[in-house]
Amino acid sequence: MTYQPPVRDHMFLLRDVLNIEQYGNLPAFADASIDVVEQIVEGAAQFTGEVLAPLNSIGDKTGCKLDPVTNTVTTPPGFKEAYRALCEGGWTGLGSDPAYGGQGLPHVVNLSFSEMSSSANMAFSMYPGLAHGAYSAIHTGGTDDQKQTYLPKMITGEWTGTMNLTEPHCGTDLGLLRTKAVPNGDGSYKITGQKIWISAGEHDMSDNIVHLVLARIEGAPAGVKGISLFIVPKFFPNADGSVGARNEGAKCVGLEEKMGIHGNATCVMQYDDAEGYLIGEENSGLKLMFVMMNEARLGVGLQGVAQAEAANQAAVAFAKDRLQGRSLTGPKNAEGPADPIIVHPDVRRLLLENKAIIEGGRAFLFWTALHGDLAHSHPDEAVRTKADDYMGLLTPVLKGYLTDRGFQVCSNAVQVHGGSGFTEHFPVSQYLRDCRIALIYEGTNGVQALDLVGRKLAAKGGRGVMTFFQEIDQFVGENDGDAELKPFVDALAATKAQLQDGTMWLMQNGLQNPDNAGAASTDYMHLFGLTGLAYMWVLMVKAANAKIAEGSTDPFFTTKVATARYFIERVLPDAAAHLAKLKTGSATLMALPAEAF
Amino acid sequence: MTYQPPVRDHMFLLRDVLNIEQYGNLPAFADASIDVVEQIVEGAAQFTGEVLAPLNSIGDKTGCKLDPVTNTVTTPPGFKEAYRALCEGGWTGLGSDPAYGGQGLPHVVNLSFSEMSSSANMAFSMYPGLAHGAYSAIHTGGTDDQKQTYLPKMITGEWTGTMNLTEPHCGTDLGLLRTKAVPNGDGSYKITGQKIWISAGEHDMSDNIVHLVLARIEGAPAGVKGISLFIVPKFFPNADGSVGARNEGAKCVGLEEKMGIHGNATCVMQYDDAEGYLIGEENSGLKLMFVMMNEARLGVGLQGVAQAEAANQAAVAFAKDRLQGRSLTGPKNAEGPADPIIVHPDVRRLLLENKAIIEGGRAFLFWTALHGDLAHSHPDEAVRTKADDYMGLLTPVLKGYLTDRGFQVCSNAVQVHGGSGFTEHFPVSQYLRDCRIALIYEGTNGVQALDLVGRKLAAKGGRGVMTFFQEIDQFVGENDGDAELKPFVDALAATKAQLQDGTMWLMQNGLQNPDNAGAASTDYMHLFGLTGLAYMWVLMVKAANAKIAEGSTDPFFTTKVATARYFIERVLPDAAAHLAKLKTGSATLMALPAEAF
Repeated sequence: MTYQPPVRDHMFLLRDVLNIEQYGNLPAFADASIDVVEQIVEGAAQFTGEVLAPLNSIGDKTGCKLDPVTNTVTTPPGFKEAYRALCEGGWTGLGSDPAYGGQGLPHVVNLSFSEMSSSANMAFSMYPGLAHGAYSAIHTGGTDDQKQTYLPKMITGEWTGTMNLTEPHCGTDLGLLRTKAVPNGDGSYKITGQKIWISAGEHDMSDNIVHLVLARIEGAPAGVKGISLFIVPKFFPNADGSVGARNEGAKCVGLEEKMGIHGNATCVMQYDDAEGYLIGEENSGLKLMFVMMNEARLGVGLQGVAQAEAANQAAVAFAKDRLQGRSLTGPKNAEGPADPIIVHPDVRRLLLENKAIIEGGRAFLFWTALHGDLAHSHPDEAVRTKADDYMGLLTPVLKGYLTDRGFQVCSNAVQVHGGSGFTEHFPVSQYLRDCRIALIYEGTNGVQALDLVGRKLAAKGGRGVMTFFQEIDQFVGENDGDAELKPFVDALAATKAQLQDGTMWLMQNGLQNPDNAGAASTDYMHLFGLTGLAYMWVLMVKAANAKIAEGSTDPFFTTKVATARYFIERVLPDAAAHLAKLKTGSATLMALPAEAF
Repeated sequence: MTYQPPVRDHMFLLRDVLNIEQYGNLPAFADASIDVVEQIVEGAAQFTGEVLAPLNSIGDKTGCKLDPVTNTVTTPPGFKEAYRALCEGGWTGLGSDPAYGGQGLPHVVNLSFSEMSSSANMAFSMYPGLAHGAYSAIHTGGTDDQKQTYLPKMITGEWTGTMNLTEPHCGTDLGLLRTKAVPNGDGSYKITGQKIWISAGEHDMSDNIVHLVLARIEGAPAGVKGISLFIVPKFFPNADGSVGARNEGAKCVGLEEKMGIHGNATCVMQYDDAEGYLIGEENSGLKLMFVMMNEARLGVGLQGVAQAEAANQAAVAFAKDRLQGRSLTGPKNAEGPADPIIVHPDVRRLLLENKAIIEGGRAFLFWTALHGDLAHSHPDEAVRTKADDYMGLLTPVLKGYLTDRGFQVCSNAVQVHGGSGFTEHFPVSQYLRDCRIALIYEGTNGVQALDLVGRKLAAKGGRGVMTFFQEIDQFVGENDGDAELKPFVDALAATKAQLQDGTMWLMQNGLQNPDNAGAASTDYMHLFGLTGLAYMWVLMVKAANAKIAEGSTDPFFTTKVATARYFIERVLPDAAAHLAKLKTGSATLMALPAEAF
């Protein structure tokens, strides 16, 4: 079973649920009529399905190879050619700034391509993915000169980029970082230190690699207040845009052996007096790194859904194909030796859970990405503010909730395969193994949950979450009279009430004792994710009902409604459990001394 | 972090919770005073910790190699020597029949060794594990001659054994199997067919391998009613007990590439006119295979707990060692650069969830295994009947629930490690990958759930489940006045009421429409598992409280009580969610046609 990009579902979201045509007055959307968008989505499907997907298993089985003498990395067979095709197709600059050669399309359209790339080949998609993060940091914080030097090359894909945060003794706690930067006197710095887990840190697909490296300028304050961000190119750029001498001090000295994403080079990067250039202000590197980080977090949430989609497609194909046992209510394939296993209710439970999470999660991602576009360029300040609040609030939810659930979906997909799912002859093992990293990198899901309850919830006096509640209340009020929609609206209202209850509990108890906030954080994040998906499912049912009311007999729409019903019956009951758990507070968690574990 | 066998917890269960000394009147227990048992448990800890655990990662990284010319398999370095030590230590015959050279110890004592072996090295432990299953089938169904020929050699470990069920087109649905048996006229048969996923099917550690193979005798009825079981030895046994000529028709022609358990040879076995001997009656092979299968299912449930234990030990060690960030309530390691991550409530949540599942699950396994001993040899028929009912009822619960939860525990353990957990430099990736098969083999967890609701629940008019409810009711009644125990007893009573509610729903709705039973099955199995663990936790608290009341200040006992509190606060709320889900019935699950997935 090869991955089939879900064009129909993407267009349903863009056209029918989000109705992106209504934003034609925004610059990014002006050139993106729905017909143009459909062409892009179809082109993305063709490219990712035909070029990237066939390389996924090869990447897993071959992995990357480091030559310890030259410090160069060879990517799996076919990756280099696929990367060239990616650049030639213009896919690297889809959402980038037209001022530097990008196509300036809405983020929400770019997201469609990103999801498909990640489903087709997660390890491959991380090379351009990291490059885009580095692009964003330079775009936000770079000088004009830096922008002119780096952005056009990164948009064409000729140069890629990386994020260098982690060191052996510090990951989450960046305040501990030791990599140092010594001024050369000419505005440049000598960077020295070791960075680990640097995705796409070295490879053979692009002419240059632009490392963005967090380091501490000699004499800077300790902790996070003394961290600066540096551009450390693998090759020095010439004035004419060509690639000059090798920045000898920057090299890859090791590759990690990992559970998954073998096709992506996870590098140990050694910087020994490597030449680097400050980007942004001294000692405010972390702020700029968070530009990349927030983008990366949404991208990781997307990976959760993307791996889930690919894994579930494989599971559905297997469940229709594998003949084993008979339906409990009598043969459904009487002429065959057995029924396909999709007749069994418990197999359907796994597949419908997957479908409900994937499609709800995808809608939540697209809906949020659209807010990213609105935050960026909507003419109405109130809309921009609300959208920006949502982006801050929802980023940790999307990252944490969707990757937790995405991994479960992949595990369900393995389960549908039975013994075949544990072998490497079927693609699901790889999806499960690849997906596992998404719960960890760019801040573990526990860190996301803490970011949510400790920072995002309280930001601006809780304005974001209150706006979110108001939006749902308003939607519920406006749609309460719609009899077809009522069961779904009621479920949304009930879940939102649970989330509000949990929010109140946090406000009352988290301030008193911050351990209460930490203790509640993951359950709260899941409760938030469930509420978000409940909202998305009602929006999708409403859009589907409208089509049905217009006379459509397309089973796509009735299937949406049935899947929403599954979500309410079989996924939402977890909300009450999360609420009950989070309200138990921190006393039991904190009672035991470390030795007792 | 190397695995440390949990001797203390095993002895707490055997001595304080189950009080196995009370069964001194039973033959298996007569020679197993608690002091002897303690020596065995300590010996098991030493052997598994020192001999098996160091080979676990080697097995994962090296795997098994098949020589396609000789059809022989080389196991990972060290496995052969470890196997010899296993045999020399007498570990292969711990629970086996003294009539054939076994030590005849209680199953519940053998379980202690099995758990430790599986934690230390799951892939290795499957070689003797499968052999014991084959031993049990021959012990139950073999002729005297067959028993005399095979059992002594299997007990010493000189010969191992396998189970051959699955064929490429049939796994769960054994009625489809095609491997055929043609009588030779001398009582033996020629066996022809291909079997896949045969764990330990070929290896270099024992002198002989005794394959138990399901096949259809020429002319036998179609479906499960025409399946017979055959002994197909790799080498023909000589009359003097030595190994004779090679059974040329039986060979390994392939090894599976798998997500985990690389150290175990998962073989494609090709039988071409291999000589085999009927065991048991013609056409009743499945019944005998279920002797092995039920034993194997308990063993797989145990693997869930065993991998969870090993993974969690690694997570605890990492959480105490890794310095990152500060406690939300102020530094706990002020002289260090950061606090150990075990100060963070969400890290503790992961570790306590693991602890609550592992220790509760272990107790449930030991408690059930003890019923296995009682069913076998208690002088009171009523006790035997009840114990036998429990074994039937609880086997699918232990297999399905404990492996589902065991995998979650392993995933939690990866999560505690952050990025390190995704690399292969730390042991947790292997535990997660190895553990994943436990949800699948010996009947997927979906098949377990269906066995529970479709067969075991209704067996003998529901006698087993009703006895289980009565036992809990009686315990609740007897302990209701114990103020210390009351919160735990109340939680048990409430969970049991939910399970009873779910059982009633199933009885009313499952008969009406079997799809309702299938649709409810997995949630019901989890609700059952939660109830079982709730009961175990109350029993453990009661035993711990007794020690505390006697004046013990050992933190082991207060930790038990605190972990039980975590279980009630943070694990049991899922019970209500499972009940709500299972009561939604099958309508939504069955609504969509296969094409809609």
